Amino acid sequence: MNKITIKAPYLLFLGRETEPTYAKTGAGIAQWRPELCAGQLNLERGTVDLGLPKMSIQDAKAAGVKSLIIGTASVGGAIPDDWLDILEEAALAGLDIVAGVHSRLSDSPRLVAAAKTSGSTLVDVRVPPKILPVGTGKKRSGMRLLTVGTDCALGKKYTALAIERDMKKRGLNADFRASGQTGIMIAGQGLPIDSVVADFISGAAELLSPDNTPDHWDIVEGQGGLYHPGYSGVSIGLLVGSQPDAFVVCTAAGRTHIEGWPDFELPSIDAVIERTISIGQQVNPNICCVGISANTSSLSEEESAAYLKGLSDKYQLPAVDPIRGSTDAIIDYMNLTFATKEAS
Amino acid sequence: MNKITIKAPYLLFLGRETEPTYAKTGAGIAQWRPELCAGQLNLERGTVDLGLPKMSIQDAKAAGVKSLIIGTASVGGAIPDDWLDILEEAALAGLDIVAGVHSRLSDSPRLVAAAKTSGSTLVDVRVPPKILPVGTGKKRSGMRLLTVGTDCALGKKYTALAIERDMKKRGLNADFRASGQTGIMIAGQGLPIDSVVADFISGAAELLSPDNTPDHWDIVEGQGGLYHPGYSGVSIGLLVGSQPDAFVVCTAAGRTHIEGWPDFELPSIDAVIERTISIGQQVNPNICCVGISANTSSLSEEESAAYLKGLSDKYQLPAVDPIRGSTDAIIDYMNLTFATKEAS
Repeated sequence: MNKITIKAPYLLFLGRETEPTYAKTGAGIAQWRPELCAGQLNLERGTVDLGLPKMSIQDAKAAGVKSLIIGTASVGGAIPDDWLDILEEAALAGLDIVAGVHSRLSDSPRLVAAAKTSGSTLVDVRVPPKILPVGTGKKRSGMRLLTVGTDCALGKKYTALAIERDMKKRGLNADFRASGQTGIMIAGQGLPIDSVVADFISGAAELLSPDNTPDHWDIVEGQGGLYHPGYSGVSIGLLVGSQPDAFVVCTAAGRTHIEGWPDFELPSIDAVIERTISIGQQVNPNICCVGISANTSSLSEEESAAYLKGLSDKYQLPAVDPIRGSTDAIIDYMNLTFATKEAS
Repeated sequence: MNKITIKAPYLLFLGRETEPTYAKTGAGIAQWRPELCAGQLNLERGTVDLGLPKMSIQDAKAAGVKSLIIGTASVGGAIPDDWLDILEEAALAGLDIVAGVHSRLSDSPRLVAAAKTSGSTLVDVRVPPKILPVGTGKKRSGMRLLTVGTDCALGKKYTALAIERDMKKRGLNADFRASGQTGIMIAGQGLPIDSVVADFISGAAELLSPDNTPDHWDIVEGQGGLYHPGYSGVSIGLLVGSQPDAFVVCTAAGRTHIEGWPDFELPSIDAVIERTISIGQQVNPNICCVGISANTSSLSEEESAAYLKGLSDKYQLPAVDPIRGSTDAIIDYMNLTFATKEAS
């Protein structure tokens, strides 16, 4: 097994959470993969509602649920003691337990014993497979789009998911490829690129978007930022392994510095485009930018429209906010770009 | 402890090796750190001679040896059963056992038990410390030189060691900083950058060359290659974390393609210089190239001299083969460059 995989359908576990912000993982799964979510389970006093049927472990078992996914963060990242009874019950009932919390599921002797008894699996999406290859750089069949960013935490995952959704709406053949823990939980598979051993970053990225049919697009979730003082190695290894044909630059309106690194100015979109092309050409001479995706949540509706138009005019590329609208303009541009390329 | 450290003096263990090529690690330690090597130990039929006094474990113990270093490779990378008796004896005698072989020392119950009994340590130089920071990008005091390469395996470690040696000969304040397993064994400390988790590459590189006095140079061993289809993430993370003031490009005469990746042409020296500066400027605006180090072992003496002169003329930089000569021309150039900068 060289990828993490999560068996559907899911029961989303929300603990005693009362703040929707802390249940972002669960909300993301319910938003992007509603067809895989059978129900939700809140502990006593937990009030977060994802709009799914409320289920006990026994209900879930009867409904054919295969995995309980911990869809909420916990204080300090550990598994609270008062979650253990219900997680143990789920594991004993044969459900896989899936988590991306900081402490590992396999560090809990009770969960390990319960899973062993029933034959279920503890899936820690932060732990990459033990054996990964070194990147080969060999050209793979099929097409790939990577979301890159001026920084972390500004919509690379959301943009990739939105492009997948909007391509599928048009009947195009596309799959979101998750490179981070929340993305893996949403996609039900993937590889946590930032957690692999350094020598295997590109190799893991190659596994993430394997050979495919010529009409197929992998929409790869980016990580970090090419200019990031902490994470640029991850971003560049992912770029080289993904060998994208197309990329979208993600940014956030109003952000001036790398978040958490106040001494570092946000790189310009030009700089990100130039470096992505320069490095990406090592493994794909045809790499090109097909759009800009901006998080404009800090702007009014009118300001956002003006900001996106400004970006689009300046770069002569489609510029969208996928939370406010669709990514259709990017897909139109891709269709033109790659149809033209194929015809030439 | 956020760095691997090896206690001197050393006993170099050479097993039953008869081929000097397979005892490269031991030979490297004896060549670069003779003052730390108390003796060598060959098993029966082993003939490799590093010119050190032959010692039993008891001799070594009596001579105050602190660490037994496995200085030879083994077939398949495991620890052969017929090494175990002597390694166990060494651990029981209180010597640390140091290895970079593929299988971990801590996987041997006999060695674990022996080390526990005596209180000695099993040091696996391939295993990074468990807790590493994310790179901050903050400017550190002191000066840094990084060796970068057009490819792997063409002299980045050797060049860094030679520059350290030649700077020290002039009374300059310099330390080799090891980023790979053989380098760590030679230096007695360091971090195996290619083995850290991807998110921490730059952070580990920052630990490797900490704040120092203004006149001090860290000579950092490079890894991989900026254009390498497998390892560029490692190389770039190391570059960003090292924030070098100066770098030397290492290459090999006659190499046309990335070794083991026949579809990838070797990048030009210009391309390596340009990308190293472009990325390095994120964390050090003054980064500059101070020379070229070429492995010319495939050339005759005359051809080598002509090749180096050609490089030097083309790039207007000193070009040396540190195995054939010294790195003095690079150090002269550094003195001029940084003296000028300091005066300006």
